[in-house]
Amino acid sequence: MVLNVGVIGTGNIGSDHVRRLATQVSGARVAALFDVDGERAGAVADRVGARVHSQAADVIEDIQVDAVVIASPGDTHADLVLACVAADKPVLCEKPLATTVESALKVLEAEVAHGRRLTRVGFMRRHDPGYRAVKVAVDDGSVGEPLLMHCVHRNASVPAGFTSDMSLTDSVIHEIDAARWLLGDEIVAATVVAVRPSPLATNGMRDPQLVLLETAGGAVVDVEVFLHCQYGYDVRCEVVGANGTVSLDTPTTGALTRSGRREQAVPEDWRVRFAPAYLDELQQWVDGVASGNGGGGGSSAWDGYAATAVAQACVASLSSGARTAVGLVDRPTLYA
Amino acid sequence: MVLNVGVIGTGNIGSDHVRRLATQVSGARVAALFDVDGERAGAVADRVGARVHSQAADVIEDIQVDAVVIASPGDTHADLVLACVAADKPVLCEKPLATTVESALKVLEAEVAHGRRLTRVGFMRRHDPGYRAVKVAVDDGSVGEPLLMHCVHRNASVPAGFTSDMSLTDSVIHEIDAARWLLGDEIVAATVVAVRPSPLATNGMRDPQLVLLETAGGAVVDVEVFLHCQYGYDVRCEVVGANGTVSLDTPTTGALTRSGRREQAVPEDWRVRFAPAYLDELQQWVDGVASGNGGGGGSSAWDGYAATAVAQACVASLSSGARTAVGLVDRPTLYA
Amino acid sequence: MVLNVGVIGTGNIGSDHVRRLATQVSGARVAALFDVDGERAGAVADRVGARVHSQAADVIEDIQVDAVVIASPGDTHADLVLACVAADKPVLCEKPLATTVESALKVLEAEVAHGRRLTRVGFMRRHDPGYRAVKVAVDDGSVGEPLLMHCVHRNASVPAGFTSDMSLTDSVIHEIDAARWLLGDEIVAATVVAVRPSPLATNGMRDPQLVLLETAGGAVVDVEVFLHCQYGYDVRCEVVGANGTVSLDTPTTGALTRSGRREQAVPEDWRVRFAPAYLDELQQWVDGVASGNGGGGGSSAWDGYAATAVAQACVASLSSGARTAVGLVDRPTLYA
Amino acid sequence: MVLNVGVIGTGNIGSDHVRRLATQVSGARVAALFDVDGERAGAVADRVGARVHSQAADVIEDIQVDAVVIASPGDTHADLVLACVAADKPVLCEKPLATTVESALKVLEAEVAHGRRLTRVGFMRRHDPGYRAVKVAVDDGSVGEPLLMHCVHRNASVPAGFTSDMSLTDSVIHEIDAARWLLGDEIVAATVVAVRPSPLATNGMRDPQLVLLETAGGAVVDVEVFLHCQYGYDVRCEVVGANGTVSLDTPTTGALTRSGRREQAVPEDWRVRFAPAYLDELQQWVDGVASGNGGGGGSSAWDGYAATAVAQACVASLSSGARTAVGLVDRPTLYA
Repeated sequence: MVLNVGVIGTGNIGSDHVRRLATQVSGARVAALFDVDGERAGAVADRVGARVHSQAADVIEDIQVDAVVIASPGDTHADLVLACVAADKPVLCEKPLATTVESALKVLEAEVAHGRRLTRVGFMRRHDPGYRAVKVAVDDGSVGEPLLMHCVHRNASVPAGFTSDMSLTDSVIHEIDAARWLLGDEIVAATVVAVRPSPLATNGMRDPQLVLLETAGGAVVDVEVFLHCQYGYDVRCEVVGANGTVSLDTPTTGALTRSGRREQAVPEDWRVRFAPAYLDELQQWVDGVASGNGGGGGSSAWDGYAATAVAQACVASLSSGARTAVGLVDRPTLYA
Repeated sequence: MVLNVGVIGTGNIGSDHVRRLATQVSGARVAALFDVDGERAGAVADRVGARVHSQAADVIEDIQVDAVVIASPGDTHADLVLACVAADKPVLCEKPLATTVESALKVLEAEVAHGRRLTRVGFMRRHDPGYRAVKVAVDDGSVGEPLLMHCVHRNASVPAGFTSDMSLTDSVIHEIDAARWLLGDEIVAATVVAVRPSPLATNGMRDPQLVLLETAGGAVVDVEVFLHCQYGYDVRCEVVGANGTVSLDTPTTGALTRSGRREQAVPEDWRVRFAPAYLDELQQWVDGVASGNGGGGGSSAWDGYAATAVAQACVASLSSGARTAVGLVDRPTLYA
Repeated sequence: MVLNVGVIGTGNIGSDHVRRLATQVSGARVAALFDVDGERAGAVADRVGARVHSQAADVIEDIQVDAVVIASPGDTHADLVLACVAADKPVLCEKPLATTVESALKVLEAEVAHGRRLTRVGFMRRHDPGYRAVKVAVDDGSVGEPLLMHCVHRNASVPAGFTSDMSLTDSVIHEIDAARWLLGDEIVAATVVAVRPSPLATNGMRDPQLVLLETAGGAVVDVEVFLHCQYGYDVRCEVVGANGTVSLDTPTTGALTRSGRREQAVPEDWRVRFAPAYLDELQQWVDGVASGNGGGGGSSAWDGYAATAVAQACVASLSSGARTAVGLVDRPTLYA
Repeated sequence: MVLNVGVIGTGNIGSDHVRRLATQVSGARVAALFDVDGERAGAVADRVGARVHSQAADVIEDIQVDAVVIASPGDTHADLVLACVAADKPVLCEKPLATTVESALKVLEAEVAHGRRLTRVGFMRRHDPGYRAVKVAVDDGSVGEPLLMHCVHRNASVPAGFTSDMSLTDSVIHEIDAARWLLGDEIVAATVVAVRPSPLATNGMRDPQLVLLETAGGAVVDVEVFLHCQYGYDVRCEVVGANGTVSLDTPTTGALTRSGRREQAVPEDWRVRFAPAYLDELQQWVDGVASGNGGGGGSSAWDGYAATAVAQACVASLSSGARTAVGLVDRPTLYA
């Protein structure tokens, strides 16, 4: 039995998802897709034998589509997920679930009213072997009670037009989800600390930024986000517990030694670094949907809502310069 | 279009292949299988909806089977591959291609007579990202002309009944193929050096052994094979070139620090260590067969023949204590 | 020519200094010493053939003493350094130079009035090969303009009676000096962030703490200080520049692989970790004094004053919970 | 009390020893020295206030010289050590103790006749913290019974005139001593394996070479010696025991990350790499002599003799292409 997937948005990450679903994921095919750029959509569809729709909603309503992947721009996500829930179709939505807390809440309420979890948010790091090893060490008590977590998130560069706010809502949001997941704790406050900007940061963007997140249990997470680090894509973290620490380092398989130096390659970008995680995410989702659980493992709509709420608190803190509390609604029993 | 695969042998590695083909590889399904243990075959078949045959030959002749995976005991390989060639069906044969040079030659001759490459030998290391990085560095001149290669191949332990010869034909054969592939050179002589056996080696097995391989071009490869190292599965190598070196190290993603030590996990066994390589091997093979190239990329019948010839020279050297030349037939143009 | 050194304080670090001066440093001997515990002083003096004085002042005034090492409790430092300056004798004072900003200023003023730099403060990290490599990479532009610095400072445990304030004045003060030195910039504000205390921290001590330091140039330094980390002594940092980063890692020389793990030892305590740095510090100081420059290289009285001022700002921030500005006097030309 | 040291030979390593004795070693001074190049001797002597003699023998006979360091060309060593023994003066002789087995034996016989150990051979690796950690792990049973040892010894380049034989007698001799010391076992046979020479090796020198050493107990040591590796000075080893392994890696203190790579520096040459070991060697020797034990710890004349015998067996094997047995005389009780 093959799962027929519809894909909305075929830009960078969307076309990657299409390729993976068509050629690397077992038990799935891309049945239909949509993109605002019809030409691009057509080219992608041709490669995998998919139908092209002229509206996103048509993908969701297509009766041959069993489940939906959303990879369109972030501000379209919430409405599209709502449409999937209305259509009772499992959906894997790229982060963020929503660009405002209000719209994230609408998704949450709709899914609760629907009574069944259909939404998975594309926090692919939960599928990375390195992060999973950290999770195991935290959960099995190897490091004792977690007290602190240090994170760095660096890109070589970002496209023109990327803003200081986007550092928080598009990049740090990954650390927000990872911290909540690894520590098993909600984040209740955020503070963004001013740092001298890199001379290479464009358009007055504040880069790097240092973000402090506090959990309900009192643990503190610091995140360096630096999107013009020049040298590559570098994501690392260390969870500091009462008895020890566990780290996620840049994965390595070997070294090149020459000209006075032992060199280990740093991944060029997130596609290279997290390729296995993206694949595992899709395979797990397809398997979950196929097995009838609605694909609801991994990051839920609740996780997507909480991440959006924390990211928005970061944006507010960046603007005000002050520590900003995160107010979450009570967690519905659907997400217990 | 889905490739219908028949699997012969559903022991450890065979059942792994069945699981991967059924649940992780895109574009394939397991149509039929056989195992000498009918009960085991039935159980595996039930999980993936495959037909069970009562003879290996029936799998190959099954008209619904497009391509064959051979994972039965090594001494059955050559005849089964010959049957696949006779049936004009692409075949992925677990190493070794054959347990004698004579039978390996028969396969070679049959395929040459057939006029098309159908055989891929399951040297999965060629699909490991770490080995591939070594290959790139050798091929792009990063380390200069290769002169030496150091290898270690360690298992925590091996099953009772494993012999000194099997260290060479079942374990070192992986280094033989890797060295030929990485250095782009044939091996022309082998010497096995006596080492004090580990007190934990059972049944008088000579373990560890130190193997020296010489290439036609004069490079030397040393291989430590140690199958009772106790601590885990550890495969590493370093290619030493005129300008630098490139290494394959144990892959790591992070560390646990506690009780006075920074610890990095060593894989438990080859299944854990090479799981991504096995998956990539199968996906590439399925893609290659589906695209009509006969699945003939990767390790060819020639590679399988050469590896068997070198392994047999190692066995002879272990027995005689002397350096043993490897005599290869001329390479048929089919494998140019 | 041998430099006759007088040592005040022969507790842990003082007796280490005595031993090093007597047996490892070239061109020095311990001529005289004092400790409040006369018996301890006698025992140490016997081992190295030094005279014992009944008062600290007598060591400084001893006409056979050319230069003085101060390793008595921190609150005695400033007065003893003042006495050394009055006696025109070079002095190596363990950190801190003073426990209050006011007394540090007195030392500064006295030395300025004296017209010659006599004081070196024992920030031994400036003599560690790892820190020096970081300094070189920052100074030669390898990482570009420094923007951020991340630090961790962990001890397995601390003696009973160690307080939250002491984490800042005795431990973080090392990072304060290191950051000023590495970044070539003064620290203008400090914020101490509340973290959930380790259940193993005794007597209500707040441990770990997260400290943020801001430099005049806008760089931000974050410091995790954690003095009950259980697992060993771990000091690391990373300077993040506009083009790259440079790190100080735990030094390693090899690994032990067994029982499924590759292990690298973490130093037990600061004595083990910084033994070569302490030795280099003493040798450089002895050489500097002997060559007539007053031993005034390394960390000066100005550095000691600035570090004390920042540490006191940290203490104030810990108490108030607020960001606290550091107000430094103008730097006298003596320290230009 | 200061030890008056006489130094014979003030070339590269000799002048380094003079500088260390004069400025870094506690309890020693250079009283007298000699070099065949009188001008060089004079310049070195001026820097440290030493007397210059016109013959090597005069240094040994100088009544103000308590102990002697020999750093002249290797073929002068044995006679000079014999003179030291005759004069009853402790001597630290750079490796090799002798360039022929016969002359090494003469030293041994003379010292045995003298009845007291006076000779230490300058195998400085025994003083390297990394090697010491390996020794501890072997001796305390952490890795179980040692079975194999892998070594690499690489220099960026060697001076013109360096020969294939010198690779064995001047470079591999360090591994010979290290293996004997770490494994606590004598070497009984040596085999040199032909490897394709680097195109950068000059004057027909065979470089790299692969050397196999067998111990009395049956352990095997393989040594890659490669003296034109171009990239730096790289000395590593791994001892493989029945339960685990312990490695000496290139020491690191941190990393520089830029331009897509995480880089760790490789030492430029042996002076940089083993500077702390040379210093420790000298300090231990000075302390040992001063305490009246004759400086006889570390590598003894027996160790020097055994290393020379094994190195000569390597030279014979290089010439003959065959495995060559090492025949040692019985170990005198003086070296029990």
